[in-house]
Amino acid sequence: MTEVATARRSRITPEREAELYEAVLDLLREVGYDALTMDAVAARTRSSKATLYRQWGGKAELVAKAMRHSKPGHLADVDTGSLRGDLHAFALREDDCQMEQNSALMRALAMATHANPDLLRAFKELLIEPEMNEFRVVLQRAVDRGEVRADNPALEYLMHMMLGGFAARTLIDELPPTREFLISYIDAVVLPALGVPVV
Amino acid sequence: MTEVATARRSRITPEREAELYEAVLDLLREVGYDALTMDAVAARTRSSKATLYRQWGGKAELVAKAMRHSKPGHLADVDTGSLRGDLHAFALREDDCQMEQNSALMRALAMATHANPDLLRAFKELLIEPEMNEFRVVLQRAVDRGEVRADNPALEYLMHMMLGGFAARTLIDELPPTREFLISYIDAVVLPALGVPVV
Repeated sequence: MTEVATARRSRITPEREAELYEAVLDLLREVGYDALTMDAVAARTRSSKATLYRQWGGKAELVAKAMRHSKPGHLADVDTGSLRGDLHAFALREDDCQMEQNSALMRALAMATHANPDLLRAFKELLIEPEMNEFRVVLQRAVDRGEVRADNPALEYLMHMMLGGFAARTLIDELPPTREFLISYIDAVVLPALGVPVV
Repeated sequence: MTEVATARRSRITPEREAELYEAVLDLLREVGYDALTMDAVAARTRSSKATLYRQWGGKAELVAKAMRHSKPGHLADVDTGSLRGDLHAFALREDDCQMEQNSALMRALAMATHANPDLLRAFKELLIEPEMNEFRVVLQRAVDRGEVRADNPALEYLMHMMLGGFAARTLIDELPPTREFLISYIDAVVLPALGVPVV
């Protein structure tokens, strides 16, 4: 692959991109964010550092994109016909083992954002905002179906509720989030706050 | 004060204890948890390090107790006669400026728990569990009054909801928690999840 070719995003195949993201996540698990270097990513993936920087801009962006890529499927693409079904599908999109791994990684990265403003910015732009937009699509469908009132004030707080579930489960309960926990939390907190009966 | 006298907890006056906690919080704001030393606390408060260790056990315990002490009043002591009143009183117990300061400190300390298991343990034992117990008293009163059903599954998740409000406000909204935000969040999420009508 020539330098000119790699300057165009489209020349990296989806397979190559996925392989690269996997390598980044492996390295993150091994050494953590602060000790992760673009040199190590380049060596592990047999890429040039110049290519990595040209394609992703920097370490923070590369890590945020790799995390985003690890999320299976797009939330908004799953349309079960009910808000409860859509949120349960979200809870079930990873198995417990994947959820535990990703949750440990997310927690470590959330901690690293404290000392790395560029990581916080990349996280928000490339990971949290796209996820929030997908939740907005799911909620809008529920409003359009008449399941949730358009003026329900909890619509603004879906990410707050979900983040609380994940964070408190890890920090207070000191347990990994599981499918069972998430479904229970969605039924006990999220749906009632949105005024959706849990039958 | 002799070494023998300080070995007994009761010999430290509440005023002296408060003064000491204030100094610890000031130092935390200045240098952060990792750089905080018992030497610095001893120097700032004109205590001996031996006294500090005897009284508090270690840095993690001292910091957790200082944070706990900074919370004004006890949640469970405020009995307004309704759950909404009690939770609003909780939201109003600090002014916006205190809340912003304490929230920044809590966030920094939460990050520090990642690398300091002793701090995580002290935080849970001396700060989170006492607060959870106070919330349990408040919730039990609401159950006893018939405001909340004893089998409402959201009773288990009050800390999750509250933590989510604080954490997402800081991390996602990048805004300090304020009284107005907390009251809006309590009315939009916490009370509806518990089945308490917000009139």
